[in-house]
Amino acid sequence: MSDKLKEYREYRQKMNDKILAADNKVIKRIFNLDTNTYMEGALDSKTKEMLGLVSSMVLRCDDCVRYHVEQCHQLGVRKDELFEIFSVANVVGGTIVIPHMRRAVEFWEELEAEESND
Amino acid sequence: MSDKLKEYREYRQKMNDKILAADNKVIKRIFNLDTNTYMEGALDSKTKEMLGLVSSMVLRCDDCVRYHVEQCHQLGVRKDELFEIFSVANVVGGTIVIPHMRRAVEFWEELEAEESND
Amino acid sequence: MSDKLKEYREYRQKMNDKILAADNKVIKRIFNLDTNTYMEGALDSKTKEMLGLVSSMVLRCDDCVRYHVEQCHQLGVRKDELFEIFSVANVVGGTIVIPHMRRAVEFWEELEAEESND
Amino acid sequence: MSDKLKEYREYRQKMNDKILAADNKVIKRIFNLDTNTYMEGALDSKTKEMLGLVSSMVLRCDDCVRYHVEQCHQLGVRKDELFEIFSVANVVGGTIVIPHMRRAVEFWEELEAEESND
Amino acid sequence: MSDKLKEYREYRQKMNDKILAADNKVIKRIFNLDTNTYMEGALDSKTKEMLGLVSSMVLRCDDCVRYHVEQCHQLGVRKDELFEIFSVANVVGGTIVIPHMRRAVEFWEELEAEESND
Amino acid sequence: MSDKLKEYREYRQKMNDKILAADNKVIKRIFNLDTNTYMEGALDSKTKEMLGLVSSMVLRCDDCVRYHVEQCHQLGVRKDELFEIFSVANVVGGTIVIPHMRRAVEFWEELEAEESND
Repeated sequence: MSDKLKEYREYRQKMNDKILAADNKVIKRIFNLDTNTYMEGALDSKTKEMLGLVSSMVLRCDDCVRYHVEQCHQLGVRKDELFEIFSVANVVGGTIVIPHMRRAVEFWEELEAEESND
Repeated sequence: MSDKLKEYREYRQKMNDKILAADNKVIKRIFNLDTNTYMEGALDSKTKEMLGLVSSMVLRCDDCVRYHVEQCHQLGVRKDELFEIFSVANVVGGTIVIPHMRRAVEFWEELEAEESND
Repeated sequence: MSDKLKEYREYRQKMNDKILAADNKVIKRIFNLDTNTYMEGALDSKTKEMLGLVSSMVLRCDDCVRYHVEQCHQLGVRKDELFEIFSVANVVGGTIVIPHMRRAVEFWEELEAEESND
Repeated sequence: MSDKLKEYREYRQKMNDKILAADNKVIKRIFNLDTNTYMEGALDSKTKEMLGLVSSMVLRCDDCVRYHVEQCHQLGVRKDELFEIFSVANVVGGTIVIPHMRRAVEFWEELEAEESND
Repeated sequence: MSDKLKEYREYRQKMNDKILAADNKVIKRIFNLDTNTYMEGALDSKTKEMLGLVSSMVLRCDDCVRYHVEQCHQLGVRKDELFEIFSVANVVGGTIVIPHMRRAVEFWEELEAEESND
Repeated sequence: MSDKLKEYREYRQKMNDKILAADNKVIKRIFNLDTNTYMEGALDSKTKEMLGLVSSMVLRCDDCVRYHVEQCHQLGVRKDELFEIFSVANVVGGTIVIPHMRRAVEFWEELEAEESND
């Protein structure tokens, strides 16, 4: 696992734990809802994660992009599919999406490297 | 065809014609690119239109939502699938997406009514 | 009740009913969560509705602004307080918030007129 | 003057008057600042109004777009220049800008018609 | 004072000084207006800072969030109140607000640590 | 060349190369279109780059701001002109633009230092 991947995952986990420990009911339910949203339903999880990814890209949230890129990777999204998701994000959201695509591609490569190291 | 559907389509067509007649090369290429983005590729058109729809919803562009709702409808997206797309949009984008969902549901019903009148 | 107020409330109710009838669990929970968010807690409801209003203004969602303006009105927010909420929204969010403030002021006046007609 | 132009201008003026009458110092200073921003300086007013227009388009504020389209029109921006401003807005901001361009082109035509009626 | 807190404050001060030294009248007045917006008025400063914080969160501006978290901390906002502000931001603005909440919680903890070191 | 400037340029180039190597036609055309948008036309390149800069600022994309600040610098935009672009961005987009202005000013200074070192 690359240092960047490790740091991203640990920080995310540590802060989520602190947030949930604050015991605000609305926030806890949002976290719970967030998980349920991407479960198998009328649409399969892979499609839903792609929907989550493209939404995160046009809204330009790097951490959200990373989260959904990782889920997509685990659910078998291929690189050519990934770039078609990016193409929709860039066309709908404009060139301001490009810097987020750069960082998403970098993150994807780290996931690929991690996988080949297993 | 409902009056609202008719008005939406005619205005869209009329203004697109005027915009293209202005003969700005960059804008003409964007229009062209917009069409190409949703063509069959590594991902099928139905998936891509769903990606376009969820992006339009989180970015809260009613006209874009209408356009992609119509494409989804034509490509066989079912109502339960539609609402799962909406669920991702609402979770990622928050309750500010709800008013756009209201108008999208109204538009979907007009498309359904048009279809049953054929 | 002015025609505008009536139309706004009826459309909102009608479409919410249709959305909830679609029986998507995630969306139903978002609607439920939305209600709970503004209940009395560490902060009182009035403060929370003011937070909801300013958020809706900077995110420039007219329907959300209307909803929270009405809640604020019911919870006793005064006109000079309302304009201080608007002032924060305009400073943080810029002059693109002004058109939404215009419509919010118009809506506020309709609520005031309705009240004095009771 | 077209009915749409008349309605837009009268509503804008009427609501601005009400807002200023509320006598909130911060809001009054924002209105004043808004006017000063586009005055001749290191950059001329025409350039500044073009900057205001492109900003309003990518932020997708129809009323702001209308305001700056009118200022640009008065300061002699030509139609081919207008479409180059639009091209930047569409490339940077993506296809979600297109519906706002449609309405901006319609508004521009009303300004042109008004001028030729003088 | 933690290194992060120190770095954030020094960078902010250094760059603000450079910006004000450029002597652009509009920008100087915005900085001045920004300060005045949160002063005691019809609403007290604490409420206004909470409005500023929730606005910054839904607009997802980390530096603005930090600024208002610090003001809220100084004005006596408690941790349970802080999380209720966050809950409004997350519900209105969606899960894309979560990464900003993570960083806001981290910053809050640094302020708490600084205070207990005094 | 400062380390920051070097790192920004190298990362940008490296990731753009990877993105283009993925050979997604839509994305390649967006990159191509992005270049064409700012070429001389009815408006000169300097004006167009200023339009690109102000758009990037109100949309709060630091990498895009850096790109256009550099183009503006090369095309002879002066510091007082730069701050007038910033003033429009701050007025239209609000105080959430300020942190991006801080980083833009820092980047401008690095470009100035690089130039005086040539």
